[in-house]
Amino acid sequence: MPSLVHHPLDPASRLVRLMCAEYGVPLDLEEIKPWLREEALLEINPAATLPILFTDTEQAVVGILATLHVIEDFYAPDAVGGLVPADPMARAEMWRLVEWALVKLNDEVTRYLVEEKIAKRDLRGATPEPAVLRAAKANFVEHMLYFNYLLASRNWVGGDEMSLADFALAAHFSTLDYMGDIDWSKAPHETRDWYSRIKSRPAFRTLLNDRVTAMPPSKGYANLDF
Amino acid sequence: MPSLVHHPLDPASRLVRLMCAEYGVPLDLEEIKPWLREEALLEINPAATLPILFTDTEQAVVGILATLHVIEDFYAPDAVGGLVPADPMARAEMWRLVEWALVKLNDEVTRYLVEEKIAKRDLRGATPEPAVLRAAKANFVEHMLYFNYLLASRNWVGGDEMSLADFALAAHFSTLDYMGDIDWSKAPHETRDWYSRIKSRPAFRTLLNDRVTAMPPSKGYANLDF
Repeated sequence: MPSLVHHPLDPASRLVRLMCAEYGVPLDLEEIKPWLREEALLEINPAATLPILFTDTEQAVVGILATLHVIEDFYAPDAVGGLVPADPMARAEMWRLVEWALVKLNDEVTRYLVEEKIAKRDLRGATPEPAVLRAAKANFVEHMLYFNYLLASRNWVGGDEMSLADFALAAHFSTLDYMGDIDWSKAPHETRDWYSRIKSRPAFRTLLNDRVTAMPPSKGYANLDF
Repeated sequence: MPSLVHHPLDPASRLVRLMCAEYGVPLDLEEIKPWLREEALLEINPAATLPILFTDTEQAVVGILATLHVIEDFYAPDAVGGLVPADPMARAEMWRLVEWALVKLNDEVTRYLVEEKIAKRDLRGATPEPAVLRAAKANFVEHMLYFNYLLASRNWVGGDEMSLADFALAAHFSTLDYMGDIDWSKAPHETRDWYSRIKSRPAFRTLLNDRVTAMPPSKGYANLDF
């Protein structure tokens, strides 16, 4: 069975867990805290980033781009219904939005909130910097407007079919939702409906049981009717 | 002919130009300054990032991940000698290092230097912040140590064969080199030899004629014997 070195609130690790669950690939999970930059992590990945996947043959696959491609190469079901569209232009739109989640949304929102709320406390008992939290949340409002614009004319974020783009975005949403950083009472209904649909998928169940020490999830986190 | 919306010092655009040149795909180039966030750019790409490729059928492909995949899907030669290794684990190592260049090196080095030296001056005539330049250059020293470690035991950065990983890294190197941010007199010889080999490829020629208004390239930029 492949195993995944992950942190429960790392959105890239969550994307891999969602993808594997959707493809019916069981994963052994090994939890680490990448911000501790432990020697064992740095030896495998000097970038000290997650995820790291060990294949059935125990070869290390490092980083989210490599991991997504390896899962698609080795573990995607042959049957119709994968997460990567067959049409090249639909695939390009999927990659555009995967990049949006992994790079832009991460850079402007998620990584600040995880660092302030989780890593800083864990590393030196520090409390989050209110100005950073405010900036990240203001950025998220702008992202939400864009997702809502897309979802007003599309079934799924990349188009008519659910794809890896939905999972990449939902992975970030679920991290933010765990930390209580999504105000659903103010969220536009298209985005809320989309998240509700994707959260109801069997693949999502594994994430909803996650618990981080000394940080319980927000009230609606595991609730399908949030 | 496909066309590329790019900026000469944007490393992701440079990667696409290198890849297309290597594959013998001619490109129409349209230069823009993404930091101006002009309406025409935002309509195609609300993230205001480059590159944007227009295919032969004038469909927009937005962002570096989408563009790399579309070039590989539509334009890669069938013959042996592409930039994406056939072996899945070699491909995973390639993606790890592409991610290193596009995300980590960009985040810690290149984007700060381009922003300070090019975008800030262009937007408001401001001079670069010395502390930011110093931090980015100190980060680059660390990156160099790692590339040198890799190249001490490998022919190319991802392994025995040249791949997209070399081009991704070389695209960043060439942007930094243009701006005079690589001190070759102090660079370890493995990395210098590698850059010399890749810079000598015919595909690299197009980049070496680049000129940015009011910012001539560093002395050795176009020199194959730097």
